[in-house]
Amino acid sequence: MRSEILSVGTELLMGQIANTDAQFLSRELREMGIGVYYHTVVGDNPGRLKAQLTEALSRSDLVILTGGLGPTPDDLTKETAAELLGLPLFEDAHEKQVLLDRFESMGRECTPNNFKQIFFPEGSTILPNPNGTAPGCLIEKDGKIIVILPGPPRELNPMFTDYVKPYLVGRTGGVMLSRFIHVYGIGESAMAYRLGEWLNSTNPTLATYVGNGDIILRATATAATKEEAAFQLAPMEQAIQTLFGENIVSWEGKEMPEVVIDLLRMRGSTVACAESCTGGMIASALVDIPGCSDVFLEGCVTYSNEAKMRRLGVKAETLERYGAVSEPTAREMAEGMRATSGATYALATTGIAGPGGGTVDKPVGLIYVALAGPKGTRVIERRSNRSRAQNRRGAALDALDLLRRELECLNEEY
Amino acid sequence: MRSEILSVGTELLMGQIANTDAQFLSRELREMGIGVYYHTVVGDNPGRLKAQLTEALSRSDLVILTGGLGPTPDDLTKETAAELLGLPLFEDAHEKQVLLDRFESMGRECTPNNFKQIFFPEGSTILPNPNGTAPGCLIEKDGKIIVILPGPPRELNPMFTDYVKPYLVGRTGGVMLSRFIHVYGIGESAMAYRLGEWLNSTNPTLATYVGNGDIILRATATAATKEEAAFQLAPMEQAIQTLFGENIVSWEGKEMPEVVIDLLRMRGSTVACAESCTGGMIASALVDIPGCSDVFLEGCVTYSNEAKMRRLGVKAETLERYGAVSEPTAREMAEGMRATSGATYALATTGIAGPGGGTVDKPVGLIYVALAGPKGTRVIERRSNRSRAQNRRGAALDALDLLRRELECLNEEY
Repeated sequence: MRSEILSVGTELLMGQIANTDAQFLSRELREMGIGVYYHTVVGDNPGRLKAQLTEALSRSDLVILTGGLGPTPDDLTKETAAELLGLPLFEDAHEKQVLLDRFESMGRECTPNNFKQIFFPEGSTILPNPNGTAPGCLIEKDGKIIVILPGPPRELNPMFTDYVKPYLVGRTGGVMLSRFIHVYGIGESAMAYRLGEWLNSTNPTLATYVGNGDIILRATATAATKEEAAFQLAPMEQAIQTLFGENIVSWEGKEMPEVVIDLLRMRGSTVACAESCTGGMIASALVDIPGCSDVFLEGCVTYSNEAKMRRLGVKAETLERYGAVSEPTAREMAEGMRATSGATYALATTGIAGPGGGTVDKPVGLIYVALAGPKGTRVIERRSNRSRAQNRRGAALDALDLLRRELECLNEEY
Repeated sequence: MRSEILSVGTELLMGQIANTDAQFLSRELREMGIGVYYHTVVGDNPGRLKAQLTEALSRSDLVILTGGLGPTPDDLTKETAAELLGLPLFEDAHEKQVLLDRFESMGRECTPNNFKQIFFPEGSTILPNPNGTAPGCLIEKDGKIIVILPGPPRELNPMFTDYVKPYLVGRTGGVMLSRFIHVYGIGESAMAYRLGEWLNSTNPTLATYVGNGDIILRATATAATKEEAAFQLAPMEQAIQTLFGENIVSWEGKEMPEVVIDLLRMRGSTVACAESCTGGMIASALVDIPGCSDVFLEGCVTYSNEAKMRRLGVKAETLERYGAVSEPTAREMAEGMRATSGATYALATTGIAGPGGGTVDKPVGLIYVALAGPKGTRVIERRSNRSRAQNRRGAALDALDLLRRELECLNEEY
């Protein structure tokens, strides 16, 4: 099946927003094995939209239109498509009631201009929109499929997932099952190299995405039943486990901070952190997980030497002899934090985030990451200089990964 | 002048990346008063690219092609454009040397496939690429302008800004001057409403963008000289000052944390922070600014009651009587942090970030933000419930804004 995406919206042509709808839909279609051949954006202009839709229908089997479904006069996608297809518009009584109820629940008046949102080309399947006022619709005509979706991603994404995807999968008579695997500590190109032919597999499919400091693998199988799809995924999952083993942070789409919080809770352990160069990033990543308070006790951002001594008990002698950016300072920070907080584990970071402050001995990007726990303290040295923000983020994730490995008993013996 | 953007890349059609190049170019062109009528994406396929480029040249005066300039065999943008325009390709000796020097400086071998990057359609103006290996080019033919740019944004953006923009502005015989004004504490739609007709002004132009928690106004004038452009901007700047006054964080494109760091340095003051619900976000935002160490002393993430008492000296009685999320606790956290750190100012936050943990009296989104300084302590109550991350970010920015206003003497008298 050949498909293309035709987006309607002057805000795209003015650069106010990026066309993330096209990206989302392309990923989803690709996963279903449907090729996407064109993305096109036109403004809120009926003439240019009609010309472009004519072109699209001449070369593709599936055309997904996004945007231009709202209540204002320049929202003309449905009207233009209906005219081109020679279909009159009808008012849908059910969607009218949904619209009226929605406005009533918001305590707002439903002005007449809103009613244009509940007119659809004759013969359409209506796609409900619980996240906005404009439903979408799906039309089959002359062997072509035309899907019309609202522009805002928080309306479009669930509408596609809940209605369009099952429809398209249903045409092949099957179900889809996806797994999102988070991998940390291997670059995307190295990962692609190791995965080799798996990336060309058609069922299950496999794709890599750059995540929030990690890489996400998305494995998807299509089959007649969910059980069969799971069965089809198994060899790919086995290969991923063999290739990336200890680097796999989660098989369930979770990011590092959530995985660490879950592991701490499971082990009945707690954590505190003492941060210099990461400056609150580790604490903030943990606090971002709702309900973290039972395992995250506290953090200190000891940016100055004075704070390192006063808050954590780092020795003046250590700072003088080895410097603030050193293995012994990182060790004392972690051990001091563990002692003063009473947490099971303490993480610490100290380093030169850059862009200034580097020397020959201690270049920008040199960062020590320490973990103190019941079995002792370990310190890792990290040397990787990118931007200040990337150096900091990398060190924060390395610290959390060190704790994850400790909690999963993957670190070497002390 | 009618323009359009034609992007080449299978990675766009597979949804691996969003078309941020089209967004960037559209903003830039709009600012220059050049209308953008279409965005199109095609894959690395010469036939479809040729058909689309033919179409684009038939309807637009300026066609900007992005992507497909690399060293691999499927990078065919220049070759396809040259063929369509009937222009032979020539090897550029200068760019060849630049390429060889680049590989030598990286200590890598320049394999033969790289040389395709230094062939250009005859008559092109070459656009140097200091950020990558593939230069761009600009061709004028039969009254049309064709600009060919590399796909990666960190190569495309500076190449457009440094070479294409001056060329396009130069065709009108002028210079452009832009100002980026950061405004905090007013929503984008309220701002647009207040700005009214200023948003329709054609020279200078004015556009609003959602920033990192703030709104960015971009005011741009085109004139024969820089001085004249500045003169043209003046009434618009005056209007912005009158409309948004104290909410203006920066006239020079700076974000809140940098503005606060600059103000502290100017006043010879220092800051420390005690964070509960923001959990290190304030500290992390400050530490993100290089060279912050002379004004940022330290931070404590006192998530537990125990840490609030031990690290900051918050009284057990206060926590018991008013609760951790209360005006008195926020006050004691800030005052305790100021006393223990020795900083001129201390910021504190405590609140219910959600999604759980709310009650009728203290709903999710209730956050207290405190500032302790030489003149006393002030506490603001914030009630705004969005996502956990947004509640936390909003509170962190409110705290920094409170300090900014204090340092700019905008807060009411104590």
